[in-house]
Amino acid sequence: MVDTLSLRINETRFRENFERLSQIGATAEGGVNRPAFSDFHTEARAWFRARAVEAGLVFNIDGAANHSATLRQPGAKRALLLGSHLDSVPNGGRFDGALGVVAALEVLQTVKDANLQLPVNLEAIDFTDEECKYVEFLGSRAFTAQLETQNFRITSDDPDEFEKILAGKDLSTHSLLTCGRDPSTYVGYLELHIEQGSRLEEKNLHLGIVTSIVGISSFLMTFKGRADHAGTTPMPSRLNAGLGASAFNITLPKIIEEQFPECVANVGKMVFSPGASNVVPERVEVLCEFRAPDDLRADELNNAIRSAASEVTEQYGLELDISILGRSKAALMDPELQNVIDASARALGLKTMRLASGAGHDAQVLANFISTGMILVPSVAGISHNPKEFTKWEDCVNGANALLGSAIQWAHQTQ
Amino acid sequence: MVDTLSLRINETRFRENFERLSQIGATAEGGVNRPAFSDFHTEARAWFRARAVEAGLVFNIDGAANHSATLRQPGAKRALLLGSHLDSVPNGGRFDGALGVVAALEVLQTVKDANLQLPVNLEAIDFTDEECKYVEFLGSRAFTAQLETQNFRITSDDPDEFEKILAGKDLSTHSLLTCGRDPSTYVGYLELHIEQGSRLEEKNLHLGIVTSIVGISSFLMTFKGRADHAGTTPMPSRLNAGLGASAFNITLPKIIEEQFPECVANVGKMVFSPGASNVVPERVEVLCEFRAPDDLRADELNNAIRSAASEVTEQYGLELDISILGRSKAALMDPELQNVIDASARALGLKTMRLASGAGHDAQVLANFISTGMILVPSVAGISHNPKEFTKWEDCVNGANALLGSAIQWAHQTQ
Repeated sequence: MVDTLSLRINETRFRENFERLSQIGATAEGGVNRPAFSDFHTEARAWFRARAVEAGLVFNIDGAANHSATLRQPGAKRALLLGSHLDSVPNGGRFDGALGVVAALEVLQTVKDANLQLPVNLEAIDFTDEECKYVEFLGSRAFTAQLETQNFRITSDDPDEFEKILAGKDLSTHSLLTCGRDPSTYVGYLELHIEQGSRLEEKNLHLGIVTSIVGISSFLMTFKGRADHAGTTPMPSRLNAGLGASAFNITLPKIIEEQFPECVANVGKMVFSPGASNVVPERVEVLCEFRAPDDLRADELNNAIRSAASEVTEQYGLELDISILGRSKAALMDPELQNVIDASARALGLKTMRLASGAGHDAQVLANFISTGMILVPSVAGISHNPKEFTKWEDCVNGANALLGSAIQWAHQTQ
Repeated sequence: MVDTLSLRINETRFRENFERLSQIGATAEGGVNRPAFSDFHTEARAWFRARAVEAGLVFNIDGAANHSATLRQPGAKRALLLGSHLDSVPNGGRFDGALGVVAALEVLQTVKDANLQLPVNLEAIDFTDEECKYVEFLGSRAFTAQLETQNFRITSDDPDEFEKILAGKDLSTHSLLTCGRDPSTYVGYLELHIEQGSRLEEKNLHLGIVTSIVGISSFLMTFKGRADHAGTTPMPSRLNAGLGASAFNITLPKIIEEQFPECVANVGKMVFSPGASNVVPERVEVLCEFRAPDDLRADELNNAIRSAASEVTEQYGLELDISILGRSKAALMDPELQNVIDASARALGLKTMRLASGAGHDAQVLANFISTGMILVPSVAGISHNPKEFTKWEDCVNGANALLGSAIQWAHQTQ
């Protein structure tokens, strides 16, 4: 029997594959431009298919255009899913998504090369439209039967754009709604991804073990005062909506720092009305979001934010409207799978930490469906969604080896 | 000889005139809509012309379409100018400008009815486009030869719009540039206007005697930070341009309250880039203005604002650019003319205060040309540029009588 503890991926092949993939849709700034269903995205997927077939894996495209390659094991009835996505944001980086797909493929090839017999099949998957060119997490939501017709309302100048895109790929809203898998046929999902933050780098660690993927709440707060002549109205008589909005913005990071250090929040935009230098702002719309690692903390932070907003509203004599724009629940990673990742990282001599992911991933969709685990590798300076996105090659290799070790361990453990 | 101290305007005629004028361009909300050169503005000017001719005054239209009516005095070589403007902002109020023109006409008629002999002619004027439909203070700047060709660059979809408007009124840029009067032919300018603020009402006073019309400085401050992922970037690592802009906005009223109580300032607009809820704001443009009663205080406030902005810029690790959008100097009213207004108000038993006007007026243009004085009457709740703009009729009458008394006194005093 193969010594699974000493099994390692093929670094040369892994790197060749990663670098070849990085050339598809490569930009002058060093990133890639592969939005879902674009020509470069299609080319990247064709490249993945060719590698899978070449490696003797069983290739499949489902009704959401998810591309997967399976390494069948004799007598296995279930599969362990590994993967991520090959699409990118416009003018994005080379690592986001692509690293996880190439590593999943490499894990299958390594197991195959070693003639390792596992009690479950291994399936490497490239999910469709993770970056929300059309529908957020389209592929993983279709895979897990979490899509509804209403999710297909796309904002576009051409109302038929999405249908046309689907038709061009032999897909339809019907195929998206009916391609969900049976969760009992899977033992779990493992995703390797770059951190997209700087916590691992700052702490000089090799790997992050994700405990949860944060829930995101976004809302629009409208502070309402009174438009007055900015030359003739005495300052103390003004009901300046801009002051309420600004005071709220200043308060927000203090709330996080003092009471919710595990959460983040952001005011991304304020819109002033009427918006002239000589008129006291009557209305300011504040676009705000926060992210929390679990739903309890999300509720507590939501309450803290609302009371801070009410306080400044009162302080400046204003009125306040809050409308919820969106709320996704926090997705918890399987604690046993976290332990398995931890053990395989330790076997590789890697320093790890457990952390909540502030970014969204297909893993958060899969977590509602099957046992899910996620491994993060450091992002240099925390930069992502940017051509400057970078992860050192040794960190990519460590991540892929941890994915390999965790997959083998989980495959045995879930039997 | 007439007892000039007991001379009063004809309240009935004054009110009839004011109410008739208020019907021209009247809006359903109770205001008027008479932007410069609109049909209703033209109708209001025709109405003024008819009243002047009917009253036996000498009527004139100059090369800037300023309409004036003169009461000639035997042997007089110079004139005292009284007036304001008949144009309104879109959907404006009935009092702003119109009150001063109707009162000026009433003063001339009262003097004429009383057969009062004055050493100077009296000229009642309606200045063109005070509210800046096309060119700020077009009429008074033409009258005082303070226009330049570059002032005629109008923002419009139709680049020829302004030329066409002028041609339709038998005007041209040439007539605007050449119709300036000789200041030695005038002994001064007096304007009655509503306060457009609430200071007189709050202090329960009848009249305001303007000491200066504030200078206005407007500028664009650009706070620059770094766009980061609002989910994955730790809060303390962010360079959030929105925080600098917000902190500046909060600081501004404190600077005014603590160090510059005679000034006002306003942030009317902030523009966030890139402006998404999930991206830390990289750039925020802050549109700001302040008004100061004299140039020394304007310079001091300018310095205080710049150092406050620098302080928050440093505090949040940002960069700052400031670009000046405009700066008008403060216009000082003639102190002797202020004393004359004060004396005539006292003779009428009116309670007054001296105050800087936070709003701009034709008087600020005239102040660079001849001795200028300005009388303000209370605005209910300080509302203006709004159909709800209102001044009690007794305050209008007080203002007109103070204008009459001041005009008579100044006419004698300047001989």
